[in-house]
Amino acid sequence: MNRGENEEIDPDFVARLADFLGFDQGRIQHIFEKNYLARNWGKYDYLFRFDKEISRIERGTVLYEKGDSFEVIVGFPKIRRAMVLDPTLKKHFNGLEKISVEEKMNGYNVRVANVKDDILAITRSGYVCPYSTERAKEKLDLRFFDDFPELVLYGEMLGPDNPYVPKEIYGIESVDFYIFDIREKNSGNPLPINRKQRILKEYGFLQVECFGEFSLETAAEEVTKIIRDLGEKEHEGVVIKDPDMVLAPLKYTSSESNCSDLRHAFRFYNEAGRDYMLSRIVREGFQTVEWNENEAEFKNRYMQLGESILNPLRESIRTVKNGQRLYEYVRIRVKDLKTAMEFENYLKRLGVDAIFEDPQPVGNEYLINIKKVNKSTNDKTQAIWEGELW
Amino acid sequence: MNRGENEEIDPDFVARLADFLGFDQGRIQHIFEKNYLARNWGKYDYLFRFDKEISRIERGTVLYEKGDSFEVIVGFPKIRRAMVLDPTLKKHFNGLEKISVEEKMNGYNVRVANVKDDILAITRSGYVCPYSTERAKEKLDLRFFDDFPELVLYGEMLGPDNPYVPKEIYGIESVDFYIFDIREKNSGNPLPINRKQRILKEYGFLQVECFGEFSLETAAEEVTKIIRDLGEKEHEGVVIKDPDMVLAPLKYTSSESNCSDLRHAFRFYNEAGRDYMLSRIVREGFQTVEWNENEAEFKNRYMQLGESILNPLRESIRTVKNGQRLYEYVRIRVKDLKTAMEFENYLKRLGVDAIFEDPQPVGNEYLINIKKVNKSTNDKTQAIWEGELW
Repeated sequence: MNRGENEEIDPDFVARLADFLGFDQGRIQHIFEKNYLARNWGKYDYLFRFDKEISRIERGTVLYEKGDSFEVIVGFPKIRRAMVLDPTLKKHFNGLEKISVEEKMNGYNVRVANVKDDILAITRSGYVCPYSTERAKEKLDLRFFDDFPELVLYGEMLGPDNPYVPKEIYGIESVDFYIFDIREKNSGNPLPINRKQRILKEYGFLQVECFGEFSLETAAEEVTKIIRDLGEKEHEGVVIKDPDMVLAPLKYTSSESNCSDLRHAFRFYNEAGRDYMLSRIVREGFQTVEWNENEAEFKNRYMQLGESILNPLRESIRTVKNGQRLYEYVRIRVKDLKTAMEFENYLKRLGVDAIFEDPQPVGNEYLINIKKVNKSTNDKTQAIWEGELW
Repeated sequence: MNRGENEEIDPDFVARLADFLGFDQGRIQHIFEKNYLARNWGKYDYLFRFDKEISRIERGTVLYEKGDSFEVIVGFPKIRRAMVLDPTLKKHFNGLEKISVEEKMNGYNVRVANVKDDILAITRSGYVCPYSTERAKEKLDLRFFDDFPELVLYGEMLGPDNPYVPKEIYGIESVDFYIFDIREKNSGNPLPINRKQRILKEYGFLQVECFGEFSLETAAEEVTKIIRDLGEKEHEGVVIKDPDMVLAPLKYTSSESNCSDLRHAFRFYNEAGRDYMLSRIVREGFQTVEWNENEAEFKNRYMQLGESILNPLRESIRTVKNGQRLYEYVRIRVKDLKTAMEFENYLKRLGVDAIFEDPQPVGNEYLINIKKVNKSTNDKTQAIWEGELW
């Protein structure tokens, strides 16, 4: 995997960056050497990406020279999770009268910003994704970036033509960009929810659904109702926010979303993180107790859980037993075939093993099916069928 | 946790030990410094224990001076697992006509040997367990150790009066020692199965059930039948052996045993290893595919799985929600109250937090209930109910 090269960094650059970040120069040198601050490649090689959280600078934060200073686009702040709603909401938002509840949608995170007069879509890790960039330019009213060059859109790419987390559940035909936050460059400060909503509406941008403001007193109850409804539609969950965006938001998810994550994880059981799996299972335990479920509801829940784990596992094991390879099937839809080529190189650069099939014209665009290879689970499963030991 | 002190080691001792093990002296010094070779304490401080596998010396191997040389009791060899029986058995035992199938029983491993004219029960990790030692002396015909001072009994302590893995499934009233291997000191060589069985019978020792010898050709099929029967009785599984004990054995377990492990692991979800949980889940996937189960059987399997995970999780979360603490309830039965005291100190020394209740006389012995504290799961669960984030 090639994630930015080690290189000699210009001492003058180091000095100016140290000054800008308020670090000493040795520290800057060190984080370059360790590749904690890594350069992008090709035409975006002026963009640096924090590959690790450093002194409260989020991982995925990007930084570039602008004039004789620097400009920063802060990473997606990690949103912490409420395992139970009561008393967690009251404790976390202590002092607020009301909290705001927005839908947490299930796609992939992208920041879109004006970077040195170019509109770029930057992933959670701080890479410029060529596909997301083309889609963002196609979908967004770009006047926004002229009017507010200091603001960054934080959102979720959703829909089936999505090479990372494809989902049909939102009724999106191809792929759309739903925005959940607007933040300032450099400070990373988010706009208050009202102002964010007003601006997004003004430019006709899609935004995640807001279920409204609720009194902190009854919020746990209200969120429970919302989560039950979302769960029925297989939607993921909610983000609970301070309307002024001063206190950090919290997230809470539906059982269906936990199970959907587990279905994906157990299909590629040798790739998925152990902690990822366990945390989703433990959430089911807390939810059944918090919701005080009766035996019928509980049985339903553990059957869902068991099936979400064992069914994809069986599928993968069977597939390999039958001599086939395990792939993850995704697709993209591009205007320009050059974007597909760039995206193929981009995945290669990130160490993702993917097979791009021939483009199929659809209207004035092209649909391209992609098979991502899950080598680890594939090889492990095959070895076991050949008599290897665990 | 206090697992043997760092100390100055006598240079002459180092030289002799280096000579005995065929290591250079610097290496011996190093493994002492790192505590990879650690001294037991109290009256067993002459016993050293390998706390790590070093150059194919199993972890848990113990070693002590004898005359002007040393004597070694090798650790329990790790038995590798067949994830599927076919073709694994044929591949692993390639060249053999027949293999032998023994029951794998579910208790805790103990080696019993004559160590400098004392009969000691040594745990898998290489500690002298005072409780197991008393029980072994009580249960075994000690003439064996006079007749065969060079042999070591490798077995499993089973039954309800078992402070590590209590089980009612074997119909044992208190605790019994079932032997599965006899090995020579120093070389660690196991006796061939015939000879082992003959000797064990001669001294009236309990031994794990042998289901017989099977042709390698049909072994997978035969083992499947045995495993189904064992599963119905909630028994753990089998160890498949070369009758001459030249090739390493393999193990294979029942679905019921996987689920029973999961029930225990998810009761103490914050203590149990992530890999431990995952491996038991993945086994269920391979077994359902290898056994070619229909949808009804598959549904039964995933329901069992889901319940084995979610039920203990719910129990623990509820218990803490109701203001109670999570304990693991075990018990021991001793002849001499001094053994109980020694065992309490022993657990403390190993960092196990346990509350011993008052002894209750039963016949000429004492029953003592023990509550082991599961601090990590307890504290985590309580924090979540108090509104802490994940």
